[in-house]
Amino acid sequence: MAEKSRIGVTGLAVMGANLARNMARRGFPVAVHNRTTSKTTEFMKDYGDEGAFTGTESLQEFVDALETPRKIVVMVKAGKPVDAVIDELAPLLDSGDIIIDAGNSHFPDTDRRAAYCEERGLRFMGIGVSGGEEGALNGPSIMPGGPQEAYGEVEEILTAIAANVDGTPCCTHVGPGGAGHYVKMVHNGIEYADIQLIAEAYDLLTHVAGLSAPEIGKIFEEWNSGDLESFLIEITGIVLAKTDEKTGKPLVDVIVDQAEQKGTGRWTAIDALDLGVPLTGITEAVFARTLSNLRDERREASTTLGGPTPGSGKNRDELVEDIRQALYASKVVAYAQGFAQMRAASQANDWGLDLGAMARIWRGGCIIRAQFLNRITEAYESHPDLDNLLMVPYFTEAVANAQDAWRRVVVTATEQGVAIPAFSSSLSYYDGYRRERGPANLIQGLRDYFGAHTYARTDADGKFHTRWSQDGSEVAAD
Amino acid sequence: MAEKSRIGVTGLAVMGANLARNMARRGFPVAVHNRTTSKTTEFMKDYGDEGAFTGTESLQEFVDALETPRKIVVMVKAGKPVDAVIDELAPLLDSGDIIIDAGNSHFPDTDRRAAYCEERGLRFMGIGVSGGEEGALNGPSIMPGGPQEAYGEVEEILTAIAANVDGTPCCTHVGPGGAGHYVKMVHNGIEYADIQLIAEAYDLLTHVAGLSAPEIGKIFEEWNSGDLESFLIEITGIVLAKTDEKTGKPLVDVIVDQAEQKGTGRWTAIDALDLGVPLTGITEAVFARTLSNLRDERREASTTLGGPTPGSGKNRDELVEDIRQALYASKVVAYAQGFAQMRAASQANDWGLDLGAMARIWRGGCIIRAQFLNRITEAYESHPDLDNLLMVPYFTEAVANAQDAWRRVVVTATEQGVAIPAFSSSLSYYDGYRRERGPANLIQGLRDYFGAHTYARTDADGKFHTRWSQDGSEVAAD
Repeated sequence: MAEKSRIGVTGLAVMGANLARNMARRGFPVAVHNRTTSKTTEFMKDYGDEGAFTGTESLQEFVDALETPRKIVVMVKAGKPVDAVIDELAPLLDSGDIIIDAGNSHFPDTDRRAAYCEERGLRFMGIGVSGGEEGALNGPSIMPGGPQEAYGEVEEILTAIAANVDGTPCCTHVGPGGAGHYVKMVHNGIEYADIQLIAEAYDLLTHVAGLSAPEIGKIFEEWNSGDLESFLIEITGIVLAKTDEKTGKPLVDVIVDQAEQKGTGRWTAIDALDLGVPLTGITEAVFARTLSNLRDERREASTTLGGPTPGSGKNRDELVEDIRQALYASKVVAYAQGFAQMRAASQANDWGLDLGAMARIWRGGCIIRAQFLNRITEAYESHPDLDNLLMVPYFTEAVANAQDAWRRVVVTATEQGVAIPAFSSSLSYYDGYRRERGPANLIQGLRDYFGAHTYARTDADGKFHTRWSQDGSEVAAD
Repeated sequence: MAEKSRIGVTGLAVMGANLARNMARRGFPVAVHNRTTSKTTEFMKDYGDEGAFTGTESLQEFVDALETPRKIVVMVKAGKPVDAVIDELAPLLDSGDIIIDAGNSHFPDTDRRAAYCEERGLRFMGIGVSGGEEGALNGPSIMPGGPQEAYGEVEEILTAIAANVDGTPCCTHVGPGGAGHYVKMVHNGIEYADIQLIAEAYDLLTHVAGLSAPEIGKIFEEWNSGDLESFLIEITGIVLAKTDEKTGKPLVDVIVDQAEQKGTGRWTAIDALDLGVPLTGITEAVFARTLSNLRDERREASTTLGGPTPGSGKNRDELVEDIRQALYASKVVAYAQGFAQMRAASQANDWGLDLGAMARIWRGGCIIRAQFLNRITEAYESHPDLDNLLMVPYFTEAVANAQDAWRRVVVTATEQGVAIPAFSSSLSYYDGYRRERGPANLIQGLRDYFGAHTYARTDADGKFHTRWSQDGSEVAAD
């Protein structure tokens, strides 16, 4: 009988296959399995010589091939397929075995599955994996959630296959239950905001500055050597520079302007609404994608609804620099919001998230990888109880320095009729957050008038109600 | 034995009590019941002589007091209490009896309860009731959902107790299942946007125009005689004019600036995210309330985060007029978004909502009642398949006329550092909606680069992928 494998992977579509190959290349013996056996055969034919693989044809054979406690990575489509695999696996496993869902599951499902497995004496982990196909093969960012001691059993393997920045693996134990998938969700939400901000900058550079796609590509290439340095800024430069083979035009100019989405941005926005955390940047980014899909309506509206046509020139170099600073300031706000959301979720669920460590494991492997994340890690290292990233000197100053330019960009876009939902909502959040006293006192007054919802006073404890429709006197509420 | 009652009401807190009194005053014999009998005794003592009430002590007695098919209005706290009452009532009822949930239930719960009752041979209606305590007593706006023929059984009573505008009752059959509660939810969401826009106008008038609360109250009073005429504008004038008895200051100046919420705005925003409908005005309004609750954080941030201090005067009269127009244009956008959401929900659920009729039944009794709603009714009467309210000439022109002022207000607020999330997100929606081609092509290019998510081309059918990391060639996607 062959040597037992250290870990197993079931589900050999490209993400699962690449994770298995990554493990084998790092020297870990891996048992592989797929519901359709031909997929396993094909995998063994194509990659069998990359490492110590054991191809298996049945789940029983797969389970028997693993050392105990067994560690089984499930990489199937999120949703019912995950439950189906767990249901099939559970009767074949022994107490203490570990099922690891490495797909894009929604965190409440992970919490539910963890409880289900625990009842059966099994351990369950939900791990977020970011970086796409290439990341899975060469080093993703990994966000493992589940019992600490279960993580201990797979830590060697996960940290070995993860991306590595400055000698530190982009993988750390996130927290119990659904915490890993939660953090992956917010990562994706932040990615939505980052991308929307880039799209707004591109739109302004195209229609206000009058630049072509390759010219804008060069600007992004330059921006990638400054504060904005990141994977997304880098690939924006590459995508904008790309010439379409068929037409000879810039490729982006022949791509349809309808953005799709797979749901994690929407989940992030919905969770923020549930938690009561203002998350305007990511949410506006999600809505901007939905608006982009109303293509027929927009075509009709473009001939009907009035407004300025952009293009009246200002000094182009100044405008480009203003847009760079607006992008940076808005990005800081989007991250501040996303981290405030993770903080609220950690408190609500008692997860004990180390937010600085979350920024650290996003520095490599994942879509939002950036030097910038080092500043966030430092912020939480120096201020572990930080309410909001904007409040550490580095970010306070960064935004203070950028804000005149930021305001000029919002003004220009507003005057010239260019939609900038993420730039402007981030600025409104900033201006609202730095207000000791906002206008919500009036909201409470109105709510008390029409619904007797009561209000608090600045000079007394308790709640009060004015008898608006009777004698107008104020009474203490029960 | 006494004459049977036409209808019954169980749950005699203020909303249920007032609905029962409203029915009795209109001449309908009403049986009343409450879980705690003393509440019923008290009700009969206080209001028993207002009409033909039958006070009952047990659910059996209550059910026996009703003519068949029985019509039972349940007015208890939304959530589990509604299910509990249904469970207790169901065994006592006969086939064809009608249970009517008149509370603020979430529409998916209503769908579920309708199915539950149908299985038991009962009919279930979920009806939205807006107008608060006073509306319930004197004439609310009523949004009844459920089987058409069940509505036929209660139509006489509901239309009699509803508010009435120009001889038309503010009540019509909305649609099947949860449609009534859905429309009530969107009504409340729109109310959030309306109130947030008023708060932003108040904030600008206070801090940029430098006006006092009573001075601003007078402005709202004037505004109430123009396009903005509505209950909310009217009561804003009243609330701002109110002097606090204890301090002699304007009451709003001693109310704490933290806005509470009960959840319907959040439900509306979450539903829009689920449906994929851009609903930025209402969502920003919900987030603005959550931001207002970060009072300690805001206090600290106000001493740390830099930015302009508002107050540099422009011509005050021009500014006031600009703000009025900005408020109107933003309001049109918020309603356009809310009605687009109802349209999408109607299509997704096959509800057949008559959107013009929804605007008609909101003209009286409810919180967002306004003359303005007549324009919406007319819009859908002339264009039943309208995609977006902005596209009918009345609203197209209204926004076209207001937009220069609207842009000036956003510019002023941006320059002076006043947060205007609803004004500016509405403007971004407007500018995004009237764009034949937006910047989402770049988003699709980036998604194809990092995730092989493919893109569509403007000059060919199907989806395509560029092999970015290989030879850069384009391939047709499967």
